[in-house]
Amino acid sequence: MKIAVIGGDGTGPEVTAEALKVMDAVAKLEGFTIEKTDFGFGGDHYLKTGEILPEGAVDELKKFDAIFLGAIGHPDVAPGILEKGLLLQLRFQLDQYINLRPVKLYPGVETPLKDKGPKEIDFVVVRENTEDLYAGVGGFLKKGTADEVATQTAMYTRKGCERWLRWAFEYTQKRNNPKGKKLTLVAKTNVLTFGHDLIWRTFQEVAKDYPDVEPDYNHVDACCMWMVKNPEYYDVIATTNMFGDIITDLAGILQGGMGVAAGGNINPDAGGTSMYEPMGGSAPKYTGKNVINPIAAISAAAMLLEHTGQPAAGARVMQAIQTVTGTKMKSQSAGKMGYSTTEVGDLVVEALGS
Amino acid sequence: MKIAVIGGDGTGPEVTAEALKVMDAVAKLEGFTIEKTDFGFGGDHYLKTGEILPEGAVDELKKFDAIFLGAIGHPDVAPGILEKGLLLQLRFQLDQYINLRPVKLYPGVETPLKDKGPKEIDFVVVRENTEDLYAGVGGFLKKGTADEVATQTAMYTRKGCERWLRWAFEYTQKRNNPKGKKLTLVAKTNVLTFGHDLIWRTFQEVAKDYPDVEPDYNHVDACCMWMVKNPEYYDVIATTNMFGDIITDLAGILQGGMGVAAGGNINPDAGGTSMYEPMGGSAPKYTGKNVINPIAAISAAAMLLEHTGQPAAGARVMQAIQTVTGTKMKSQSAGKMGYSTTEVGDLVVEALGS
Ligand SMILES: CC(C)[C@H](C(=O)O)[C@@H](O)C(=O)O
Ligand SMILES: CC(C)[C@H](C(=O)O)[C@@H](O)C(=O)O
Repeated sequence: MKIAVIGGDGTGPEVTAEALKVMDAVAKLEGFTIEKTDFGFGGDHYLKTGEILPEGAVDELKKFDAIFLGAIGHPDVAPGILEKGLLLQLRFQLDQYINLRPVKLYPGVETPLKDKGPKEIDFVVVRENTEDLYAGVGGFLKKGTADEVATQTAMYTRKGCERWLRWAFEYTQKRNNPKGKKLTLVAKTNVLTFGHDLIWRTFQEVAKDYPDVEPDYNHVDACCMWMVKNPEYYDVIATTNMFGDIITDLAGILQGGMGVAAGGNINPDAGGTSMYEPMGGSAPKYTGKNVINPIAAISAAAMLLEHTGQPAAGARVMQAIQTVTGTKMKSQSAGKMGYSTTEVGDLVVEALGS
Repeated sequence: MKIAVIGGDGTGPEVTAEALKVMDAVAKLEGFTIEKTDFGFGGDHYLKTGEILPEGAVDELKKFDAIFLGAIGHPDVAPGILEKGLLLQLRFQLDQYINLRPVKLYPGVETPLKDKGPKEIDFVVVRENTEDLYAGVGGFLKKGTADEVATQTAMYTRKGCERWLRWAFEYTQKRNNPKGKKLTLVAKTNVLTFGHDLIWRTFQEVAKDYPDVEPDYNHVDACCMWMVKNPEYYDVIATTNMFGDIITDLAGILQGGMGVAAGGNINPDAGGTSMYEPMGGSAPKYTGKNVINPIAAISAAAMLLEHTGQPAAGARVMQAIQTVTGTKMKSQSAGKMGYSTTEVGDLVVEALGS
């Protein structure tokens, strides 16, 4: 397996190191090898060279089986520059049209919700990752005057909706939730009567091909209430890029926060290159202190393995993570884990068994 | 005080009756009178006549000092029709550009969050209410084909941003939070680089006129995490129409849900007519059972009084509500309050004192 590694900024390289350590360990146990190539993209590279993604970088990255991304975001770079120039660029240019966010409360991890545990907080969000308000379409009229008008256009294509929703139905089918297979579309059809009408029509049509999956619908506002009140209601959620951005962060806090949440930017087509990342930012204030939580990065590594032809290795890492959160770590917050960053990585390696 | 009353659908008229009962009682105590005019708009009217808002209705409503709206939504009317035809129409046509949502955990009310109480859950959301994705601007290309493209455009004007943000700064100033006056703008400037750039520029300029208010910024995704993890961080939040829709529902569940949350659609200009509503829907399954919680409707009545020239009466109702939630009611859920709908209304009247 050939993977590209973008450690990135701040604590990104530290958590990436732990993820790679665990990947190497499980590869050895499962009898395959991982060949890693480092790409030094991120804030420092940008400040030194003025370039975010060098010419040809995307073509280079396409040659890998997968990409691991640590974190981007640099205190000396204006917010938005690296996010748009690197993260969103890669999502778009590599056509990673699925953003997959498993939401699972691991044993031993604290949720801010009363009376909810690992049984209740266990669902998956399938966020569309290439369309919607993220298209970058918009403009200004009479900019800078009292009469200024600004627009930002959400764009949706039938093709984009169909491939995403079909993938979500198939994922729901495979997830095979014993409580029943249910795919909840989260949108705002009563207000976004153009854009979300296309999504709604596509959802209904695609649903016909998956009669064993219950198609369900929530308005995005109701979903936010429900996710807090009754997270056990959800099996799989399909949602748009913008709403997905919002509800996956909400879901992330329910599962214990940025220290544990991970996501995959997936291009499921033949030859597609996918990218896996912990959800946490680059956390400049913890950089170099060996206190940041690497569990999210290790979870991202488990997802990478699962979706890149090594599902047994992925499952083994997931299991080891849960052993460590459930029996060792005191907290998922940086500096309060009871262990250092590298020690948590070692504990997961140990929990892989032999 | 002349108010227009739209009881609406389902349990709307039941909770409205309790709100009016309390308003009448406090008016008597405070020495003013309320003249009420009923408007029978809603699902039944629509099914009977095919019209949602009759010709001239808006002009008629403009003559009132305020509007009280119970709930709309009818099981036999397709979702979206009444919401768009009545609720959004009134917001737009009456230019109610502020949607005000106080978020306060009343004493005795349960929140789904661990370790958070009335001291931590106490902030206000100022949602813009006339622009953004709610503009209804969009369309289709090649509708119904495999090549279909759909758009939905968020529109913002300098004027619209300025009046809303200025109002939010002024509100923050008046709220005068002893912890410090802070106005947090919630948007997504790193992705919505056209629309939210206008908002951001306007925010920075308007902030200069309110040096005693700390201007603050959160991305909407981070805000959802933070609101669950640290609601005490917030004083006043200013946000767009779409994001406001989402985060006020999230905030609503933190303060105990639809049984308690209320909002105002405010046109603060001279001669403007504002509309106050409980956040809960029409709850068809509870209709006519005398079990629905009227606290949200009574809170909406308190807001109406506060913003329509009777702040002392409004504060008195707010106080009475908190006495009843804190010392009488068992729960805020329909059917579990320990009292009927009408009994809760009576308890609030009683708690007004004499
Ligand atoms: C950094 C930002 C552009 C990004 C997004 O909005 O998608 C992030 O919030 C995420 O969810 O991965
Ligand atoms: C009913 C619907 C159109 C409305 C909205 O989206 O604004 C509602 O959710 C609200 O928040 O008042």
